[in-house]
Amino acid sequence: MATRNSRVVRRSAKVGRKTAHRSVADEPVDYGPFENWIGFHLRLAHEAFFQAFGRVAVGQEVRPGRFAALLLIGRNPGISQTVLSRAISRDKSTLTPLLADLVRRGFVERTRTRRDRRTYRLKLSAAGEKALATLTGFATRHEQNIDRVIGKRDRALLLRILQKISTELT
Amino acid sequence: MATRNSRVVRRSAKVGRKTAHRSVADEPVDYGPFENWIGFHLRLAHEAFFQAFGRVAVGQEVRPGRFAALLLIGRNPGISQTVLSRAISRDKSTLTPLLADLVRRGFVERTRTRRDRRTYRLKLSAAGEKALATLTGFATRHEQNIDRVIGKRDRALLLRILQKISTELT
Repeated sequence: MATRNSRVVRRSAKVGRKTAHRSVADEPVDYGPFENWIGFHLRLAHEAFFQAFGRVAVGQEVRPGRFAALLLIGRNPGISQTVLSRAISRDKSTLTPLLADLVRRGFVERTRTRRDRRTYRLKLSAAGEKALATLTGFATRHEQNIDRVIGKRDRALLLRILQKISTELT
Repeated sequence: MATRNSRVVRRSAKVGRKTAHRSVADEPVDYGPFENWIGFHLRLAHEAFFQAFGRVAVGQEVRPGRFAALLLIGRNPGISQTVLSRAISRDKSTLTPLLADLVRRGFVERTRTRRDRRTYRLKLSAAGEKALATLTGFATRHEQNIDRVIGKRDRALLLRILQKISTELT
């Protein structure tokens, strides 16, 4: 099975200690068509990016996955849940519990307008603003790490191509 | 709030029908630093890619998110859960229930080896092979759609940059 398409799975720093399973961990894996598929590599890069961000922002009360919601609410006070959902590309089934958690922890305030009882409006509390400022600091540093990894030119290329994918596939 | 960084959120085809909420849906959103951040655009592109794949592979018994596990087990019969986890960048907490579901549905068989009782070995059932063949067909077509959206040259660039991110950040 392990032919041209195979490669040895890299052992990450976290699992790099020597164990009796060395032979298992070093087994070559045949990736088949995934070697050249955008979908698979988008997933791996996305995963690596957010795991690395999680390590940079470790110990924060707000999890990295909530940063996007927090930032957009912070910059657009009074934003509706519908608009937020579309802007961060999360459907109701994942956004609603995420927001409920942010509300319960006191970072986000959620109100219904008198004019339209069906629409939730969102804004940050003082604690939410503080958490956002801290996370923005971590994220800025993390983005700078990415710049070092891929360089300014590839960064601009990557942004352009990713935007094309998210704009033209939806 | 809506300054240089703002743009009107695109209404996707799915939510494009006219409603009383038109003014809400067309509210401009200030994305702040996200306009130029890799992390945010990786998330959006990843999300758009898999939503589009889900639309292509609609009605399949195996969900698109399970395709990676299915394909790697299919190409590496007897692969251990540990190696699979690393190869598709999923930790135990998300991989274990995913595999349990594939086993319950009769697509994957899971055995412990006599030599090492701690290691699960995985392989596809006949039904799993069939599901994999169908999903591979859908995914091949979907990858060709991506080629049409971004072009062959940008596709190669994108692959190279994504690989760099996932290799150097872990």
